[in-house]
Amino acid sequence: MTNPTASNIHIALVHFPVYNKVGDIVTSSVTTLDVHDISRISRTYGIATFYVVTPLSTQQVLVERMMKHWLEGYGSTYNPTRKEALLVTRVKNVLDDAVTDIATRTGKRPKTVIPDAKSFPQSRDYPTIREELKNKDEQYLLVFGTGWGLEHGLVKRADFVLAPIEGLSGYNHLPVRAAVSVILDRLLAREA
Amino acid sequence: MTNPTASNIHIALVHFPVYNKVGDIVTSSVTTLDVHDISRISRTYGIATFYVVTPLSTQQVLVERMMKHWLEGYGSTYNPTRKEALLVTRVKNVLDDAVTDIATRTGKRPKTVIPDAKSFPQSRDYPTIREELKNKDEQYLLVFGTGWGLEHGLVKRADFVLAPIEGLSGYNHLPVRAAVSVILDRLLAREA
Repeated sequence: MTNPTASNIHIALVHFPVYNKVGDIVTSSVTTLDVHDISRISRTYGIATFYVVTPLSTQQVLVERMMKHWLEGYGSTYNPTRKEALLVTRVKNVLDDAVTDIATRTGKRPKTVIPDAKSFPQSRDYPTIREELKNKDEQYLLVFGTGWGLEHGLVKRADFVLAPIEGLSGYNHLPVRAAVSVILDRLLAREA
Repeated sequence: MTNPTASNIHIALVHFPVYNKVGDIVTSSVTTLDVHDISRISRTYGIATFYVVTPLSTQQVLVERMMKHWLEGYGSTYNPTRKEALLVTRVKNVLDDAVTDIATRTGKRPKTVIPDAKSFPQSRDYPTIREELKNKDEQYLLVFGTGWGLEHGLVKRADFVLAPIEGLSGYNHLPVRAAVSVILDRLLAREA
């Protein structure tokens, strides 16, 4: 089965520039588990490309080694005929490189969608973004920060800002891999 | 903030009886990361109790040590006044012990809800279960299998069976921690 519904949608997991607990701008470490989980989640929801964004070359090597193992291991034997339709994971230095990569490959500069707890002029609710993503003439890049969140200047330049996942308890510290699952499900799951 | 909407809802993560890749019934290993993630997800969605079900005493000790560290560490400093309202994690030998624990504590035997890829007479869609869970006169236990899924006899005895998370790509191998996130969001998130 090819994937007509989500092939214009890409994800970036950004490790710089992000905040740490005390508000400094830092480069967070790549968590191989996040890469592994988000790859599986992305495949499930038919994401076209998953970008791991970090400027640290040692971490880039780590991710590339891990992905190679996975794509040529389990991923390659799971269903070889579907291999080409499956996720492409790419490592990039900075978010702009992911944007450029999509523009080069598709001929279209992607619109960026970033979840953030604050309200921005370009903030939209989930049903609105869900509709927006159905526009097959556009490319979209969903951007997820690690650590304590993406640097605000980066969020300000987003085309769309999404409300974060709000729980029922006032406790909102979902692991990024859980937030990605929930957000993709809200934006891309088949209608009930 | 107390949690009026979900306090009658409990989760169990079951490590026995589950299938392994070749269809044998086995006891899967506890993954501390699953326990950690599902605790955070459960707190976010206001789950009353999170049961880790394993008959292996060494694994029970592992989980208890980990939870103690977490609850008395980060969890305890995050917001001390909310401590009592926060998640209770309990380790049980078998699923029936979790059912009994809920019945003893609440006076009500919980109805069980189990996601399974197969169709059963008691299969229901998400909107139906979402409505069902609003019944505050009942207790509910959402049961998640590890490994390659819960033993079928156990699923057959469920009060309700939920369709699994279906992606868009024909690829459905979500990590259990991702499946739990998505299912709780579908069943319990605030209305948009």
